[in-house]
Amino acid sequence: MNLQVKRAYNFNAGPSALPLEVLEKAQQEFIDFRGTGMSVMELSHRSSDYEAVHNQAKDSLKELLSIPEDYEILFLQGGASLQFSMIPMNFLKPEQKAGYILTGSWSEKAFKEAKLFGNPYEAASTKEGNYSRIPQLDELNYNADDAYLHLTSNNTIFGTEWKEFPSVDVPLIGDMSSDILSKPVDVSKFSLIYAGAQKNLGPSGVTVVIVRKDFIEKANKNIPTMLKYSTHADNNSLYNTPPTFGIYMLGEVLNWAKSIGGITEVAKRNEEKAKLLYDVIDESNGFYTGHAEKDSRSFMNVTFRVKGEELEKKFLAEAGQEGFVGVKGHRSVGGCRASIYNAVPYEACKAFSEFMKQFQKVNG
Amino acid sequence: MNLQVKRAYNFNAGPSALPLEVLEKAQQEFIDFRGTGMSVMELSHRSSDYEAVHNQAKDSLKELLSIPEDYEILFLQGGASLQFSMIPMNFLKPEQKAGYILTGSWSEKAFKEAKLFGNPYEAASTKEGNYSRIPQLDELNYNADDAYLHLTSNNTIFGTEWKEFPSVDVPLIGDMSSDILSKPVDVSKFSLIYAGAQKNLGPSGVTVVIVRKDFIEKANKNIPTMLKYSTHADNNSLYNTPPTFGIYMLGEVLNWAKSIGGITEVAKRNEEKAKLLYDVIDESNGFYTGHAEKDSRSFMNVTFRVKGEELEKKFLAEAGQEGFVGVKGHRSVGGCRASIYNAVPYEACKAFSEFMKQFQKVNG
Repeated sequence: MNLQVKRAYNFNAGPSALPLEVLEKAQQEFIDFRGTGMSVMELSHRSSDYEAVHNQAKDSLKELLSIPEDYEILFLQGGASLQFSMIPMNFLKPEQKAGYILTGSWSEKAFKEAKLFGNPYEAASTKEGNYSRIPQLDELNYNADDAYLHLTSNNTIFGTEWKEFPSVDVPLIGDMSSDILSKPVDVSKFSLIYAGAQKNLGPSGVTVVIVRKDFIEKANKNIPTMLKYSTHADNNSLYNTPPTFGIYMLGEVLNWAKSIGGITEVAKRNEEKAKLLYDVIDESNGFYTGHAEKDSRSFMNVTFRVKGEELEKKFLAEAGQEGFVGVKGHRSVGGCRASIYNAVPYEACKAFSEFMKQFQKVNG
Repeated sequence: MNLQVKRAYNFNAGPSALPLEVLEKAQQEFIDFRGTGMSVMELSHRSSDYEAVHNQAKDSLKELLSIPEDYEILFLQGGASLQFSMIPMNFLKPEQKAGYILTGSWSEKAFKEAKLFGNPYEAASTKEGNYSRIPQLDELNYNADDAYLHLTSNNTIFGTEWKEFPSVDVPLIGDMSSDILSKPVDVSKFSLIYAGAQKNLGPSGVTVVIVRKDFIEKANKNIPTMLKYSTHADNNSLYNTPPTFGIYMLGEVLNWAKSIGGITEVAKRNEEKAKLLYDVIDESNGFYTGHAEKDSRSFMNVTFRVKGEELEKKFLAEAGQEGFVGVKGHRSVGGCRASIYNAVPYEACKAFSEFMKQFQKVNG
């Protein structure tokens, strides 16, 4: 590692920090990719050099998340936002119902898009209380004959995260954009998992979809070619030109996750990082207040308020001066947010927790 | 320029060659983007650092293509293939007609997608003769009250290219994926132009759309948010997370085009490069045969056959050995294809033309 590299304390909510080792390797082979005399961006997506990159990224994801054989892994474009439409377009018929569990802005958006295609309804909502918690499993209302049940596993804006997924007898769909690869997940509970890459997986511009093969077969037929999951499943996500460089970076991020010890080690580190910040909040005697209820706390996005509006402004200004990037909370919650995805190092969280303690000492 | 850099003779049809200067600059600032301590991939898409990149790319494209004020420039995802569906979804009503000029595989695909939404028809076709030419302007059949008329400006597979665009009294839509930025274009003839970036503009994963503002207003309303042009126009292509690194690279490619003298110089170079190869074909006494008719020849994709099947195989094998990448023709035409997009240097074309001459000398 080049000790001369200047690195920001990057707490951006996404796009967000990438592992330095990955950036360094990508930089090194940026112009001449493995002796081809071309950048990985300049390779044909039909070449064996690129296909090796593509397939290795799939294999690594399969290994890291223990994805069963009866699932397809797709690399698409358009982010989670396009998935909000593709899901009902493929899996909801005009007369059918689908339950949406509302835990924040992203699930609201997914719910809204589904209304164009069928009859979605609120299977649960924690909007009362400004989405400060994940619903209990016994709060969920859904019907066994629904097309599917949709949830958002982590809520970036509100800083809440599912700790245990429901086992349900309808196809379960999960938007895991902001916590995929942060901890082990039982993929077999889901018929479809989707995630924009730009938090834990790589740069923006790649969307990962993990979908049961027999679920794809149930999809509606008369829809545009590019918006059918079957098009991409039948063509190894090479029906049209994929975002090749993004998939390459994703593959390198996955290699990095494997190199540090896989998903168990990643989860352990994330828990330690989150604990650093939540401990400061909990030990601050109310100087800092977490937005999320304790048992719904996200290990990816730590959302909190500073006591008093003026002090909060001062806190954000000083955090910026100290080189902590992206700490301002989303306007729908206000306050502060530290997004501490996989690639944010322990040292960055440690430095921020020290900053928080020091700020309280001086201003509390 | 680093003379040590090993560079392939890259004739890939797309993704394809990028300017070495652009790759070198991007490599240099890959980990620390302009003093931010972050890669451009790690910047928030809501940050002023990223927005400067985004807006500069738009401004450069506007300047290079002399795009009038009443047009929007959008950066989308999904490639031309998703545009094939977005266009009729937005601009065709079930009872409406739209003319499609068929000049190859890509226009056929666009035509097929439109059938889901309304009544597209063939406004012309040169399929007879295996798409070896662009139709004459007087061959076009269309109706003044059609929703639009669609054409493909350059046909990568067949190696044909429009030399003059029709002036028509219906909204004209052009897929310019494979020749955008290769020569000046009168944007005002078009209501909408679209292009996947991965030939002349940058890496794959970014789609450029140039669309008249008053055309956007005519679009259908009840369509998914992400598939509405108005969503992206209203949000400066920042409704959701854009493919930030791809847009950055696109901006750098545009800077490069400006630095060498703008669109006039780019066009001059392309003409010279194409002439090198077409001259060898024309002076080969039938040893090489161009697929395209002379007045329809593409300056981007030079498609040709070598006399005799065995010799053609030998030609392709030797070209590969000599380091010419991507020279095998598409299976629908067979033979050979040299894709000589903007970033392919004159020297690469010169070397290939010499190789062609030498091959004929030995084997002719």
